[in-house]
Amino acid sequence: MNKKGSVGIVVPEKIPFETPLVLENGQTLPRFDLMIETYGTLNADKSNAVLVCHALSGHHHVAGYHSPQEKHPGWWDSMVGPGKPIDTDRFFVVGLNNLGGCHGSTGPLAENPETGRDYGADFPVVTVKDWVRSQAMLADYLGVTQWAAVVGGSLGGMQALQWTIDFPERVRHALVIASAPKLSAQNIAFNDVARQAILTDPDFDGGHYAKESKIPTRGLRIARMMGHITYLAEDGLGEKFGRDLRSDGYQYGYGVEFEIESYLRYQGDKFAGRFDANTYLLMTKALDYFDPAAEYGHNLQKALKHVQAKFFVASFSTDWRFSPERSKELVKALIAARKPVQYIEVQSNHGHDAFLMEDEPYIRAVAAYMNNVYEDAQS
Amino acid sequence: MNKKGSVGIVVPEKIPFETPLVLENGQTLPRFDLMIETYGTLNADKSNAVLVCHALSGHHHVAGYHSPQEKHPGWWDSMVGPGKPIDTDRFFVVGLNNLGGCHGSTGPLAENPETGRDYGADFPVVTVKDWVRSQAMLADYLGVTQWAAVVGGSLGGMQALQWTIDFPERVRHALVIASAPKLSAQNIAFNDVARQAILTDPDFDGGHYAKESKIPTRGLRIARMMGHITYLAEDGLGEKFGRDLRSDGYQYGYGVEFEIESYLRYQGDKFAGRFDANTYLLMTKALDYFDPAAEYGHNLQKALKHVQAKFFVASFSTDWRFSPERSKELVKALIAARKPVQYIEVQSNHGHDAFLMEDEPYIRAVAAYMNNVYEDAQS
Repeated sequence: MNKKGSVGIVVPEKIPFETPLVLENGQTLPRFDLMIETYGTLNADKSNAVLVCHALSGHHHVAGYHSPQEKHPGWWDSMVGPGKPIDTDRFFVVGLNNLGGCHGSTGPLAENPETGRDYGADFPVVTVKDWVRSQAMLADYLGVTQWAAVVGGSLGGMQALQWTIDFPERVRHALVIASAPKLSAQNIAFNDVARQAILTDPDFDGGHYAKESKIPTRGLRIARMMGHITYLAEDGLGEKFGRDLRSDGYQYGYGVEFEIESYLRYQGDKFAGRFDANTYLLMTKALDYFDPAAEYGHNLQKALKHVQAKFFVASFSTDWRFSPERSKELVKALIAARKPVQYIEVQSNHGHDAFLMEDEPYIRAVAAYMNNVYEDAQS
Repeated sequence: MNKKGSVGIVVPEKIPFETPLVLENGQTLPRFDLMIETYGTLNADKSNAVLVCHALSGHHHVAGYHSPQEKHPGWWDSMVGPGKPIDTDRFFVVGLNNLGGCHGSTGPLAENPETGRDYGADFPVVTVKDWVRSQAMLADYLGVTQWAAVVGGSLGGMQALQWTIDFPERVRHALVIASAPKLSAQNIAFNDVARQAILTDPDFDGGHYAKESKIPTRGLRIARMMGHITYLAEDGLGEKFGRDLRSDGYQYGYGVEFEIESYLRYQGDKFAGRFDANTYLLMTKALDYFDPAAEYGHNLQKALKHVQAKFFVASFSTDWRFSPERSKELVKALIAARKPVQYIEVQSNHGHDAFLMEDEPYIRAVAAYMNNVYEDAQS
């Protein structure tokens, strides 16, 4: 465990909110918890707070280690830590598990106070707007009136964008990475196949599988395997695995033969063992529903009209799930709305997953931008 | 039913082969049937025969109608018929269902003569080379010493290519459309997820589902839905479906909401009701295994050294499952091997499925090439 530039051992905290939250779908959560982690110190005028929003399968554990035994650090440890682009010597960084998540925040695995049993499938379908409102309540709790920056990749970038629209005065900078202003038909199609794999797994049991101590692992596994292919670039897959076989010659059967099969199945198995199916379903729905321009006559430029934040937008050349073209839609709308924006298209062969990787030009670009954010926070 | 340019009502024929066929995997099929359809008339010197090879879910019913009530014609009716690019007034056209198929040729649904029961999962994994050998036996049966052309799209194009390598003197022209000299890691990955969806469906029952009168429809449905997305182009999907909803507003549930979901689920249901799961598995394996250069030191140019056929190679601009780059690999190897080749990259927004569509420039290009084939056959 390399502790250089690491925030070290971190302890998550569960923050209770006893105020009812009315959701976009009309339902009310009587109360909820948000599981969070924070790194660095909030300064006296509370101007150095950075919110990190997570993607589909992410959570509050952004950086550091929960114990000296933990093998892997938080999911964005390459980005967050002392001396790293989101520098915890400068910023007070907040990571959280979103509502509906399966890592400690109130979601399908939490107790429904109305029934005394787990929510399971009864947990409401939440949206990016709902998340942003719950995050605003978290900001209030932390005493943060305005974020120095809200940062996220993929679905996390959507939250950063929604923040700037719904709470314009509360965000100074938004970093929207490998994201899109809304999903395409192809994106929705992949999400729907993933959902169908889970929903039609006999062990799903209408989403109340926990009652029977079952887990719809088959469906989750297929969903993740398919998703995983789409997060990677064809070139990168070719370079890493090619047509390499695990043993000599073809087996003429349906066991693992190609290295890529072995890798994918491993990823699928690992995910199915640790992620909640109901959470997967609702996270993909939040992705599908995200369309901040919709309430502004489907005009993104109009949606951005009252935005006060400055933007950093980044995309990756081989990301075909959230291609550079999708980021450029946002960049064009920001320019048309006369909002400051810096855009970088990073050359990478890691596809969508590149946003999680330690690609040097990418890391440097975020570092340079966060340096501006810091100077802004000082002024 | 528009009969203009149609071969009209056609009657399939089942051809029995009582000679044992030793397969690439070492197993022997003691006997087999091939279900075929033919259109047009074989000329006196038997020089005008064209073989049409099918793709993953295709069969012998290439053109025309089985009855006046049949709603849809054969799968390549746009290409095959009187006055059409593969002109049945000029050519004797042969379509077949491949070994291992589920449309009448010997495959998992056929009786295993050794047990008196259906083969089911015991049907051997066959390869493109096996198919080509069985097709050569069919050519012998039909009295065709040399095909005027062997034609196919996708997996069908792979058979056309293998024909030119394995039986160089028996093919005058090969039309290899929307195909590739071998699958990429990403291709194999998608196939493996499809297979995993089927193999882990509890109704699959180790492939012996027919015994229990069950069908692993869940798995087949997921496999087809995912496959279908990859056969289409993101642009085409966007134009056709966009983010259109089936009813006003979001439902905040997991029913059908977006038009693209409705379309995909319909495609999945239709396929699961008509296709055999064991056949799907073995067809995807034939795709994965296809790599004609492998037995020539992984040198495609060497593999093509003794080829006598002239080539027509076509790809489609938005086909990302078998991209133009993959076709160009073949074209480059053909040029390096000093073999005649015509190549066209068709602009289309229909993705991989474009090879089945009536795209005017594509249809014209095939027609022009088939005109050469005809003149060749006359000389």
